[in-house]
Amino acid sequence: MMTKVLSGAGLRGQSAGQTALCSVGKAAAGLTYRGYDIDVLADKASFEEVAYLLLYGDLPTRQQLTQYEAKLLSLRPLPETLKQALELIPKDAHPMDVMRTGCSVLGNLEPESPLNDQQDVADRLVATLPAMVLYWYRFSHDGVRVDTTNTGVASLAGHFLTMLKDTAPSDLEVQVMNASLILYAEHEFNASTFTARVCASTLSDMHSCITGGIGSLRGHLHGGANEAAMDMIEPWQTADQAEAGLMTKLLNKETIMGFGHAIYRERDPRNDVIKQWAKKLSDEVGDTYLYAVSERCEDVMWREKKLFCNADFFHASAYRFMGIPTKLFTPIFVCARVTGWAAHVMEQRANNRIIRPSADYIGPDHTGWIDIDQRS
Amino acid sequence: MMTKVLSGAGLRGQSAGQTALCSVGKAAAGLTYRGYDIDVLADKASFEEVAYLLLYGDLPTRQQLTQYEAKLLSLRPLPETLKQALELIPKDAHPMDVMRTGCSVLGNLEPESPLNDQQDVADRLVATLPAMVLYWYRFSHDGVRVDTTNTGVASLAGHFLTMLKDTAPSDLEVQVMNASLILYAEHEFNASTFTARVCASTLSDMHSCITGGIGSLRGHLHGGANEAAMDMIEPWQTADQAEAGLMTKLLNKETIMGFGHAIYRERDPRNDVIKQWAKKLSDEVGDTYLYAVSERCEDVMWREKKLFCNADFFHASAYRFMGIPTKLFTPIFVCARVTGWAAHVMEQRANNRIIRPSADYIGPDHTGWIDIDQRS
Repeated sequence: MMTKVLSGAGLRGQSAGQTALCSVGKAAAGLTYRGYDIDVLADKASFEEVAYLLLYGDLPTRQQLTQYEAKLLSLRPLPETLKQALELIPKDAHPMDVMRTGCSVLGNLEPESPLNDQQDVADRLVATLPAMVLYWYRFSHDGVRVDTTNTGVASLAGHFLTMLKDTAPSDLEVQVMNASLILYAEHEFNASTFTARVCASTLSDMHSCITGGIGSLRGHLHGGANEAAMDMIEPWQTADQAEAGLMTKLLNKETIMGFGHAIYRERDPRNDVIKQWAKKLSDEVGDTYLYAVSERCEDVMWREKKLFCNADFFHASAYRFMGIPTKLFTPIFVCARVTGWAAHVMEQRANNRIIRPSADYIGPDHTGWIDIDQRS
Repeated sequence: MMTKVLSGAGLRGQSAGQTALCSVGKAAAGLTYRGYDIDVLADKASFEEVAYLLLYGDLPTRQQLTQYEAKLLSLRPLPETLKQALELIPKDAHPMDVMRTGCSVLGNLEPESPLNDQQDVADRLVATLPAMVLYWYRFSHDGVRVDTTNTGVASLAGHFLTMLKDTAPSDLEVQVMNASLILYAEHEFNASTFTARVCASTLSDMHSCITGGIGSLRGHLHGGANEAAMDMIEPWQTADQAEAGLMTKLLNKETIMGFGHAIYRERDPRNDVIKQWAKKLSDEVGDTYLYAVSERCEDVMWREKKLFCNADFFHASAYRFMGIPTKLFTPIFVCARVTGWAAHVMEQRANNRIIRPSADYIGPDHTGWIDIDQRS
């Protein structure tokens, strides 16, 4: 009985199915998308290429990529009704609640059907989720109805930054955002992806699956670690301050977000990539302390706890150098991971059995009815 | 390897955790909520009592029940912004998409917080989900902004029927709706509840968990079996027609919804309850064939396939006798199951570990980068 209970907790180490999308902690760099190393993809590919790889099964030829980019461009305009719904959501709402709602509203307006099939619905979500969060953000915070279609930037990475700031991002910023979207695109049976697959296993629609994924990513044990890392490092003005502050937190046994991983044991392959980009951005913007603070945190956590930075930690400073508000960090994760979620939904559907585990009953024994006036 | 793959499929028979809320296929009647038999609850309790049992841990005393009913009554009014959002959703939307969206919108307007804690959020959803779907339904279908607060009916069962039809339901109708809500309130680690628990395990908010549950219930392998049963029996005008039609479907190996169950092997304890109520309603409304058609289907499926009616089959005719449109069948399931979902979310949080299973990798081997102009 005890063994069963322990093995049931969080399903850790238990197989819940098969996937051809991703291997974690196995080949080469430790993370592959359909067999390709994450560091190679982040170095050489565009996010659109990686989206195509995940959603269509292999890297696109030049012609396929050109067509795919044109398709994503054509799918950018938000329906007027969706804009009206986003305008109803107050400024102080949680941006992840906004994205969950935007995705759900779109499912009412453009339901999946034989005429709007899973590939089209997935591409539409890839093309519109950045616009959903930024349309709401700019409207509620700046009173601006931002143009979500014609930013003059072809890449989703650049499109996101342009909608946010109204000015064209630098080449370096687009490169970093592109790499960031690739790093966050897919990660096997993590909790949000597993949510999407459980939903898919009932043969529900794509919008329900992605809406569920967004809801699970919102939890601060899952998405949001980069936001927590930012909140931690933001007050520190020097590396020495950071070390002192971090040592105090460790002494108080506070949870430090952005370090360690449920599956990786020695390093997170995504950290090397984003750390390099954070350094380059730090140089470009003339940062005098945030990168140094971040690096010192990395040193201290390794020295004190043998914990390494995961994908989230250097994302915090990288996003800050690009002028992205902290509350939009997890929404960027959504804009990336929607590709992985949708690919997993399609994979689940292609060889489906409804995901319906059992539970160990630990409740009261069989109880007879007690009339309401006899209850105490 | 083969064993592992098979055992992973759908997690069938694998424990994914513990629950004190529900036992399925074990004690007495085969389904208990916190130790109480389902048939006793459906016979003796009100849905509000069962909601209290699930959400607060035991059956309420008379004083507790009075207070709880008053609380639910006070929580009925929908925020104006939510009504505006519901008015944006077109008539031809899927009612489950509307409920998923309504729940998600509410999470923007009244987020869970120390001031709006999990018990209050759960009660608010119990009190408002019926109104969300019916406000949209009446507005989009009849052009009526229905009063979702003061229907003059205290019970949620009667409140639902009054919002739908503008006239007070009969005592029998209220009794049947009450029993129906109880039968659908809870069912252990089914796919929608498991979705809610996976979401809860990331420490996401209650609205995300319930939104995810609604999305999974929408799938026609899960909720919606009563709608499929209705679609099947509706064209048949006599029991003989039903038998002939059903035999043709069996011959063509069509899937027949409303029969058999993933866990129950010989009978579904909920069928006995709803079948009796369907019979009483059939007599009250002067039905001359739909109950007979349903009963004949039950006989034929047992004779030909040794398959028994599950909870859904006689719900179809029962709901039809009460004048409920087929597309609102699964939304009623939501109005009931929100109690079970919310109770499971609280239980998951009380002893949490993030639900993050593994997957068996079946994808391509490690692959080197291929430059775009070399791809074929």
